Amino acid sequence: MPWVYIEDLGGHIGAEVTLKGWLYNRRSSGKVHFLLIRDGTGVCQCVASIQDLGTEAFAAANRLGQETSLEVTGLVREDKRAPGGRELTITRLEVRSPSTDYPITPKEHGPAFLLDLRHLWVRSARQHAILRVRSEVEAACRDFFHERGFVLFDSPILTPTSCEGTTNLFEIDYFERDTAKLELATAKPYPRITYDEAIERLKGKGFAVNWGDDLGADEETALSSDFTTPVLVHRYPAASKPFYMKHDPERPDLALCVDMLAPEGYGEIIGGGQREDDYETLKQRIVDHGLPLEPFNWYLDLRRYGSVPHAGFGMGIERAVTWICGTHHVREAVPFPRMMERLEP
Amino acid sequence: MPWVYIEDLGGHIGAEVTLKGWLYNRRSSGKVHFLLIRDGTGVCQCVASIQDLGTEAFAAANRLGQETSLEVTGLVREDKRAPGGRELTITRLEVRSPSTDYPITPKEHGPAFLLDLRHLWVRSARQHAILRVRSEVEAACRDFFHERGFVLFDSPILTPTSCEGTTNLFEIDYFERDTAKLELATAKPYPRITYDEAIERLKGKGFAVNWGDDLGADEETALSSDFTTPVLVHRYPAASKPFYMKHDPERPDLALCVDMLAPEGYGEIIGGGQREDDYETLKQRIVDHGLPLEPFNWYLDLRRYGSVPHAGFGMGIERAVTWICGTHHVREAVPFPRMMERLEP
Repeated sequence: MPWVYIEDLGGHIGAEVTLKGWLYNRRSSGKVHFLLIRDGTGVCQCVASIQDLGTEAFAAANRLGQETSLEVTGLVREDKRAPGGRELTITRLEVRSPSTDYPITPKEHGPAFLLDLRHLWVRSARQHAILRVRSEVEAACRDFFHERGFVLFDSPILTPTSCEGTTNLFEIDYFERDTAKLELATAKPYPRITYDEAIERLKGKGFAVNWGDDLGADEETALSSDFTTPVLVHRYPAASKPFYMKHDPERPDLALCVDMLAPEGYGEIIGGGQREDDYETLKQRIVDHGLPLEPFNWYLDLRRYGSVPHAGFGMGIERAVTWICGTHHVREAVPFPRMMERLEP
Repeated sequence: MPWVYIEDLGGHIGAEVTLKGWLYNRRSSGKVHFLLIRDGTGVCQCVASIQDLGTEAFAAANRLGQETSLEVTGLVREDKRAPGGRELTITRLEVRSPSTDYPITPKEHGPAFLLDLRHLWVRSARQHAILRVRSEVEAACRDFFHERGFVLFDSPILTPTSCEGTTNLFEIDYFERDTAKLELATAKPYPRITYDEAIERLKGKGFAVNWGDDLGADEETALSSDFTTPVLVHRYPAASKPFYMKHDPERPDLALCVDMLAPEGYGEIIGGGQREDDYETLKQRIVDHGLPLEPFNWYLDLRRYGSVPHAGFGMGIERAVTWICGTHHVREAVPFPRMMERLEP
């Protein structure tokens, strides 16, 4: 009997196949049991009757615990009423490994309880779907850059200094940062346009574009709530931005940076900007910000030896997925979220 | 004048174009200067003559420091003797940003010196090539799984416990591990074959396959040195492997694990195996290894609720790239290597 994935059932209508998966849910009319089985590619309604299974197996099927792993063999039939449009009429059912008292039931659970059981919660249809979206978003982003000749750069997790000159980085015994990623990943310069040309192009693509010169964080969120498409905000006050941002030559109080805000109040999903490429200006900024020069030697070296204009951006994958999925909490877009009070599972 | 990348020069033979890049090296015959310019996509030999450039610019071109960033305009000509088979006859040269006393010269440098300047060393042809190979290997691996329906899973970096029951994990204030990655990444079960079927398939593909039941680490390296293709070693002594490995039912002293050793003595690049899927067996193993049960609750839950046979593997990207590139040191396969005594740049 061919073993098929649920997503491939469409090619086996009228044939007998075997599914392997987990019992997602079940209900019974007395005469027939409906077993919802999931296998990581989808969910299939499987119908068990006493005629097809025999008395003993039929009775056993009604005692199966949620998340029991099993193999079922049966006939694939089209049925518009079934989830996915197909149904399996079971002729054989074999339990691979039982499951009793599965803690996540169809009833409502609180977020703390579900996060404690995140290793099981990811089996739920909605959580599984969100994580599949995340996987697709990551693949699309990587493909986009790979196809355009960019070289992927795995930046170090542990570095001796905080490069931002701010205190918003997670500090352990060492410091964490991910600044080097933005700085060095573009071995192939792209796009080959100026800051203002980039803004104009995005305007042309129908994005709402605003100046950020007098926008506070609250107003930013309010602005984002007013739109149904992403909003671009550019030229924020330089004083509120890191030292390495390039300033607008016409308005030196503004930094040449840009945020993309997801609409409906989801807020910033991309932050980007042009970096200061002049060695002396950058060095003076470090001093002006009261930062020590020595840890920035490597960064200054990049301007000391053949500096070039350069810009970049970073996307928050969790925020973007949260917006795309329309979920409320960022934590559901992370396989195993780490929070101040949560380091497990 | 169109700005082109060096890798695209082939489409512009006989045309005038502009290149933007860095001065990689130069030499002069007195009458002509040969400037080697790199732009991240390749290296192009550019020829400057006094006739084309004029006296002043010609003299200035001979004083350009290594790694000066510049723009050159000129005629693209085919020349079999030139690196890449093309040459540019310069008619205009503009310095974007100077570079003087670039510390990495064409002479030999020691590894500590080069690692201190890793942020500049990555500009060198060989280092740049290695990191491009790494980028391609990563893209190929991700594509392989994505095309086959696997769901990418970003596993947490920080976890409260060491899952391996060994002391070879880097400890900071918290612990690091990456075990969850192997465990949970295969939302779509694949391959759908047994351990022994997998070994037989690999034999059929021409791999050298050995039993590991009495193989020490020294013999392993010696074995790998004898071959010019990768060597597979399977069924190592269970006692030398982590508690979660499934044991061979026929030979319970052996674990159902497999290593792929790169030939020519490069050693292990892949480690994999089947995991113990029986709840009671796994629990007993944790106890037998003298480990506390509580931190493994989440891991045991995966067997408690509908366990299935499962296996996986992990590839060491640095080792694999080191072997593919034929380099001696793993550190050259890492953009910014972190070692016991090195946390920067």
